[in-house]
Amino acid sequence: MQHLIRTADFTNEEILELFDDARMFLDMQSNEVLKGKIVVNLFFEDSTRTRSAFEMAAKRLGAQVISLDVGRSSRSKGETIFDTIANINAMKPDAITIRHSECGLPGSLVDHVDCPIINAGDGKHAHPTQSLLDLFTIYEHFNGQVEGKKVAIIGDVKSSRVAGSNRRLLPRFGMDVCFVAPDCFKYEDSEFKQYDTLDEIIDEVDVVMSLRTQLERHDEVYFTSLTDYAKNYCITKDTFGDRDILLLHPGPVNRNIDISDEMLVDPRNKILEQVRNGVAVRMAILKKLIK
Amino acid sequence: MQHLIRTADFTNEEILELFDDARMFLDMQSNEVLKGKIVVNLFFEDSTRTRSAFEMAAKRLGAQVISLDVGRSSRSKGETIFDTIANINAMKPDAITIRHSECGLPGSLVDHVDCPIINAGDGKHAHPTQSLLDLFTIYEHFNGQVEGKKVAIIGDVKSSRVAGSNRRLLPRFGMDVCFVAPDCFKYEDSEFKQYDTLDEIIDEVDVVMSLRTQLERHDEVYFTSLTDYAKNYCITKDTFGDRDILLLHPGPVNRNIDISDEMLVDPRNKILEQVRNGVAVRMAILKKLIK
Amino acid sequence: MQHLIRTADFTNEEILELFDDARMFLDMQSNEVLKGKIVVNLFFEDSTRTRSAFEMAAKRLGAQVISLDVGRSSRSKGETIFDTIANINAMKPDAITIRHSECGLPGSLVDHVDCPIINAGDGKHAHPTQSLLDLFTIYEHFNGQVEGKKVAIIGDVKSSRVAGSNRRLLPRFGMDVCFVAPDCFKYEDSEFKQYDTLDEIIDEVDVVMSLRTQLERHDEVYFTSLTDYAKNYCITKDTFGDRDILLLHPGPVNRNIDISDEMLVDPRNKILEQVRNGVAVRMAILKKLIK
Repeated sequence: MQHLIRTADFTNEEILELFDDARMFLDMQSNEVLKGKIVVNLFFEDSTRTRSAFEMAAKRLGAQVISLDVGRSSRSKGETIFDTIANINAMKPDAITIRHSECGLPGSLVDHVDCPIINAGDGKHAHPTQSLLDLFTIYEHFNGQVEGKKVAIIGDVKSSRVAGSNRRLLPRFGMDVCFVAPDCFKYEDSEFKQYDTLDEIIDEVDVVMSLRTQLERHDEVYFTSLTDYAKNYCITKDTFGDRDILLLHPGPVNRNIDISDEMLVDPRNKILEQVRNGVAVRMAILKKLIK
Repeated sequence: MQHLIRTADFTNEEILELFDDARMFLDMQSNEVLKGKIVVNLFFEDSTRTRSAFEMAAKRLGAQVISLDVGRSSRSKGETIFDTIANINAMKPDAITIRHSECGLPGSLVDHVDCPIINAGDGKHAHPTQSLLDLFTIYEHFNGQVEGKKVAIIGDVKSSRVAGSNRRLLPRFGMDVCFVAPDCFKYEDSEFKQYDTLDEIIDEVDVVMSLRTQLERHDEVYFTSLTDYAKNYCITKDTFGDRDILLLHPGPVNRNIDISDEMLVDPRNKILEQVRNGVAVRMAILKKLIK
Repeated sequence: MQHLIRTADFTNEEILELFDDARMFLDMQSNEVLKGKIVVNLFFEDSTRTRSAFEMAAKRLGAQVISLDVGRSSRSKGETIFDTIANINAMKPDAITIRHSECGLPGSLVDHVDCPIINAGDGKHAHPTQSLLDLFTIYEHFNGQVEGKKVAIIGDVKSSRVAGSNRRLLPRFGMDVCFVAPDCFKYEDSEFKQYDTLDEIIDEVDVVMSLRTQLERHDEVYFTSLTDYAKNYCITKDTFGDRDILLLHPGPVNRNIDISDEMLVDPRNKILEQVRNGVAVRMAILKKLIK
């Protein structure tokens, strides 16, 4: 049995096979690949976006979904997460997707269940399905010619599970990843190049991935406001000029903080394509993991 | 592609065709008319009643439903409604039902989506599926002989989207609509007759539609309490006498404010028939709009 | 039409037939026994565990489920439970499962609906599906030889609907039920034997059923803390020694209050088997009641 806790759980070959399936699922037609299967969505953090993408993916494959609103009941009765999982597992679902604020928690559950666990985001650690859909979006955009492409990830990289998963995944396909962030958001040590501003490398990059910056995640006050942060890190038409760069963002976008209104309607931004790809890639993942 | 934002979106012929389907669906048996389709329910205002009627309708047709509890997640992350809709649309649902407190909002979304939008109530503006089920209930009751029937809508008509939709729809089928309300709840100007009390016209009416009156919707204090309002506007056995009048209400009923306990068990009240018809009519609407 | 309000609603023969079906469903494979059927889950009290067990059971049988979060909408609009039920019934579901804090409420609804009502727990009164799965777990453990087995139910028996249902059901299959509790949690009068401590009868019992003890259910303060209560009533390795006793608990377990960590991994505890059996037994019940 295979789980998806981090992108390293799949080989490059497996990922390319996933993409073959995802490409097929992009027509968003329903099928019966997972007819009779039941997927439990266990979101300890609210996420309309990711939860509904998983729900859409499972339902498009003909599976049933049980969404457990775990914030409200069992936990308030003082049950531990391991007890909750043991109970859900005893009901024999065919897969469990889990989002939790604690790094490493989904991975710690795999020995306690009889079905695949899919990590839908754990704290600052990883968000493998997001990273796989990001790679798929880049891969399709360049018709598979991703070797040597330069990807700049910009924003609060230190706190971002999206950055965390992508810096591990994209280099495996030959991409050159670097980070752009103010010092307070940089990794403390990193084998990757880190820049202060996008201007320094804008002429070299093929892909810019903007992140959702949330000052409230930090104890220290680095900026007086998001607007202050945005001055240097918001992606605007001025930043890009007429360069042919692919613009990505995991959503939801802080308008005019992460990306300007203007760039949100620019054809170089493929954010909604990421959302659509996210359903197709998750369909491929569910198909792969559920027997 | 067709949307249902207001009842004017359907011609009279289309509505009568809907009713043919609704009549067929009244047996409440499940079918596979929408097998493989996915309907997203996007309720920005809580409504157990309307949301579950849509969910029942979609599921009876074999569709899957994704209910997004949009109050809690994306909005708390500061996303605009247009961003939320763009994202949901990117997942390619087959229809979106939406309830929102803002008049006109569902209509403003139709250019931003690739699937039918069904307005499940927008502020004080419209509630087309309620109005269509009201018409269906009247139409079936009179075996289609609705031309010339007199309908009195009573209560807080000024604030009611149900009154708003019905005053546009019912006259298209030859019905004569009037309103009964205290001055504070009357339309400021209206081509329709407005009365102070139901007594003035009770001998002429064929249908009385009572509305749910909610004093909290008003900034000014018109009544010291709902009980005070009820003195003149609650439908009681005394109001109706033994006249043969059809009594409707969109629910939920304020007992002994809108309608007395006694009249709620009177056979002239067809409120539960409205609920049942509501599922059948919504089944017909979903069938019509989703290809 | 048959409802399940209390275990007395089924004869012993019917229960044994249920168990035949449950045994078949234990493989947890999906089927289409209830294809096209719609079950409404109406939980007025939060319960991730019971609600998801019912949802899993219905979906494994191919039914659709509509979960109504009744705490938030209709009730806040001042609707009575009877109005809510009348409305749901008008939508013609194929069954309604209901949990409510008021004793006897589910039973009082049966004359107001056209479909089976399944009591998923009503106050301190009854929890018949839990009791049936407890009996099934005991029955399977002893290969049907349950006649004469001695069952000790331990904890806050007076407030427990699980104890309430089991003391009525288990004796019907020849079991000898007794209770172990501090005086404050004992029944005031009871035809059953009640003991102060488990030690007094531990050598005679075949099954120990520990209950979830919730001090907050009581107005009076009987214990300074749950830890104080646990000193005498927590099931530990010391309590059981090496005796061959079956240990059950309806969940969620208060770790080290109801049962010690050590006993939660002891093979004599069949708590997770109860959870799995709970899905299978509820599948059998839904199959039996829904035509």
